[in-house]
Amino acid sequence: MEHPPQWTIERKRDGTTLSAEEIRSFILAYHRGEIPDYQMSALCMTILWRGMNPEEVSALTSAMMESGQCLDSSSLSQPVIDKHSSGGIGDKTSLILAPMAAACGLAVPMISGRGLGLTGGTLDKLESLPGYRTRLSEQELLAQLAKEGCAIVGQSEQLAPADRKLYALRDVTGCVPSIPLITASIMCKKLSEGLHGLVLDVKVGRGAFMKHMEDARELADSMIRVGRELNTPVCAVISNMDHPLGHSVGNAVEVQECIDLMQQGPSETPLWILTRDLGARMLQLAGRCQSLQEGQCICNQALQSGAVWAKAEAMFRAQGWNGEALPQAPLQVDIPSPQAGWVQDLDAEKIGRLVLLLGGGRRQVEDQIDHAVGLSRLCQVAEPLETGQTLATLHLRREDQRSEATALLLDAIHIGEQAPDPSTLIYETRGIET
Amino acid sequence: MEHPPQWTIERKRDGTTLSAEEIRSFILAYHRGEIPDYQMSALCMTILWRGMNPEEVSALTSAMMESGQCLDSSSLSQPVIDKHSSGGIGDKTSLILAPMAAACGLAVPMISGRGLGLTGGTLDKLESLPGYRTRLSEQELLAQLAKEGCAIVGQSEQLAPADRKLYALRDVTGCVPSIPLITASIMCKKLSEGLHGLVLDVKVGRGAFMKHMEDARELADSMIRVGRELNTPVCAVISNMDHPLGHSVGNAVEVQECIDLMQQGPSETPLWILTRDLGARMLQLAGRCQSLQEGQCICNQALQSGAVWAKAEAMFRAQGWNGEALPQAPLQVDIPSPQAGWVQDLDAEKIGRLVLLLGGGRRQVEDQIDHAVGLSRLCQVAEPLETGQTLATLHLRREDQRSEATALLLDAIHIGEQAPDPSTLIYETRGIET
Repeated sequence: MEHPPQWTIERKRDGTTLSAEEIRSFILAYHRGEIPDYQMSALCMTILWRGMNPEEVSALTSAMMESGQCLDSSSLSQPVIDKHSSGGIGDKTSLILAPMAAACGLAVPMISGRGLGLTGGTLDKLESLPGYRTRLSEQELLAQLAKEGCAIVGQSEQLAPADRKLYALRDVTGCVPSIPLITASIMCKKLSEGLHGLVLDVKVGRGAFMKHMEDARELADSMIRVGRELNTPVCAVISNMDHPLGHSVGNAVEVQECIDLMQQGPSETPLWILTRDLGARMLQLAGRCQSLQEGQCICNQALQSGAVWAKAEAMFRAQGWNGEALPQAPLQVDIPSPQAGWVQDLDAEKIGRLVLLLGGGRRQVEDQIDHAVGLSRLCQVAEPLETGQTLATLHLRREDQRSEATALLLDAIHIGEQAPDPSTLIYETRGIET
Repeated sequence: MEHPPQWTIERKRDGTTLSAEEIRSFILAYHRGEIPDYQMSALCMTILWRGMNPEEVSALTSAMMESGQCLDSSSLSQPVIDKHSSGGIGDKTSLILAPMAAACGLAVPMISGRGLGLTGGTLDKLESLPGYRTRLSEQELLAQLAKEGCAIVGQSEQLAPADRKLYALRDVTGCVPSIPLITASIMCKKLSEGLHGLVLDVKVGRGAFMKHMEDARELADSMIRVGRELNTPVCAVISNMDHPLGHSVGNAVEVQECIDLMQQGPSETPLWILTRDLGARMLQLAGRCQSLQEGQCICNQALQSGAVWAKAEAMFRAQGWNGEALPQAPLQVDIPSPQAGWVQDLDAEKIGRLVLLLGGGRRQVEDQIDHAVGLSRLCQVAEPLETGQTLATLHLRREDQRSEATALLLDAIHIGEQAPDPSTLIYETRGIET
């Protein structure tokens, strides 16, 4: 650093645009331990307050990538494409998407995260599969990508370590909800995968981090711009997270729902519609289809043919699954509808709280999770119901969870006498259109 | 803390008012080392951004007072009154005010600071007096106050230690310019002196921390409100700091100017007008006069009678001055006016930079200062000049400082052909009027 770190903090505080080199110096000095946490947290708070322009966000992203090593995907023959979701209740598309894209000729080095708070994590879900390993060496990862075309793993020590250090700091200093900081944190990890393209699923609604459409658009556009600055095509889907995605929420239950879908083939459910759309966009970015419709057809055929399930099973086994069954909760309780009518509304946030209460999520990073608990066969918005018809099956660890869980479930579901207007699943798409 | 510290940061970030107990817990936990610097700096930046209401500032002030010990002034028979100045170029009123107030029957336990940047510090100026000690024990301080009625000392280890720790952190994290944080930092130290009243001299202009009247008013009102909340009457004078105060700027030269004034008696100079006004307000707060005019008369008489100088000499000697002369710079150079006319303007900031360049101030906290350098006999705004008449006498350590110092001085003084409008010394007063 040519000048003291507080100058950078003061400049950002006063609304000045930071230069790329200034951001790079600050982040790399922080990574080396030359700038203390108390200056980094003050800078983060000024960024949260003042924002950053696209060049600044790109510089921040690049600096965090530079703190570690990128995956050298040059040995792979396939186009390397990934998807990132901003997270939501019951969002399990990754488990189908990665093998589907691989079955369609792409390589997907999907680095995923764990759940925290209401939102589940792909790694936690996959660890329901007995033996599944989320830590692969770079060599193992590249070998699996070459052979199977996909892998779903955790963030390695070498990948963007400045981001890990910074994220932990932001978490305890109130600096999480900043579009520039979120953008850089997501993009530095994804772009370290050596991608040729990235599809974003930005969730908006009660069960998502982004509650409002404007915020979701801002995050999507921010990530798209960083991709453009750093020469990686990015497109974004903004999808509905007012309601949980699919019929199950938990860990093993969500894996089971994916396996069922992959084994049974296409159905016009929100889970498949969204997964197919995201898959088609991955194919578009890879230049493997002329239109979104063509991409969707390719995905449908892959699922129909059994190729997706074959690829998923191969990936699960390559990563250590021993073929044993998913864990089952000791108590499975069908909750009957107290009335006839139509499902008017399903509150994703309340369903998320229910699963957290059952032990299926983490309140704090160090918490252990119970893979078997959750709920399945969840009714869907606009579904007609008879009195006594099952609203959902609760998967419980203990009998004493039953009454509170039942009350929470009933509180999350609103049943009315008239069929509601259908809700929109995909609100809009942003970025590259081909 | 009942909840994690980041909740407090997040609440302030989101614009929520913090409770007094929440602020107290946070500050005391920080003082005990239970909250790390990185959370404190993040909270400071949110305060800088979001501001604080009067109750929050008062709670912050109280918490910092509670981190240390307050002076127990209950044994003193006099009313205990102090003055605080927000600092400016050539501001030396404290050196006259403390003995003057003491000569008029008040006790003044004046805790002062050192200079940093352009602004000089009262302690640095007093240390020009050979032998003068700025560190007194509480016992010594109380004994001196009982006997002499005044003392000008540095901040002890026991006084508001949380403020010292916090100030050092703010300094390196861009968190200095926040009215609530400045207010609490000043007021926790002053109110720890066990005061019955406090007069503030808030400087505004080029040579002051506050450049704009609105900011000065905001700071004054903020400190007045905290005084009210914490049961200490406070009034504020907002005074002009576009021009240096008085004829000398430096350390020994400023002490000499004060000694000259105290020995020679009243004159209608800005230094005496302001000092007398502040002194009268101290007497008003102590209930020792019915009106400001009466207070000013009392001050005038005290100066005229020699009582102020007698008290000053007693204080200097009580604090260790051995009676030796002030240090003199080896080179004293009169700078002649290049033209005839009137002094239109004198730039306080440029004069401050000149003294800093000569070694009379500190760029960084650890810098040593040269007490002998500076300038004296500085011309005043609206003064008529002949060509060749002295603009100022430079007090230099080395011959090689002469040409740059001369150029800087000439740059700071603007001479024009017409007499300028007189400039205002005291813009307004705020707070208690009696």
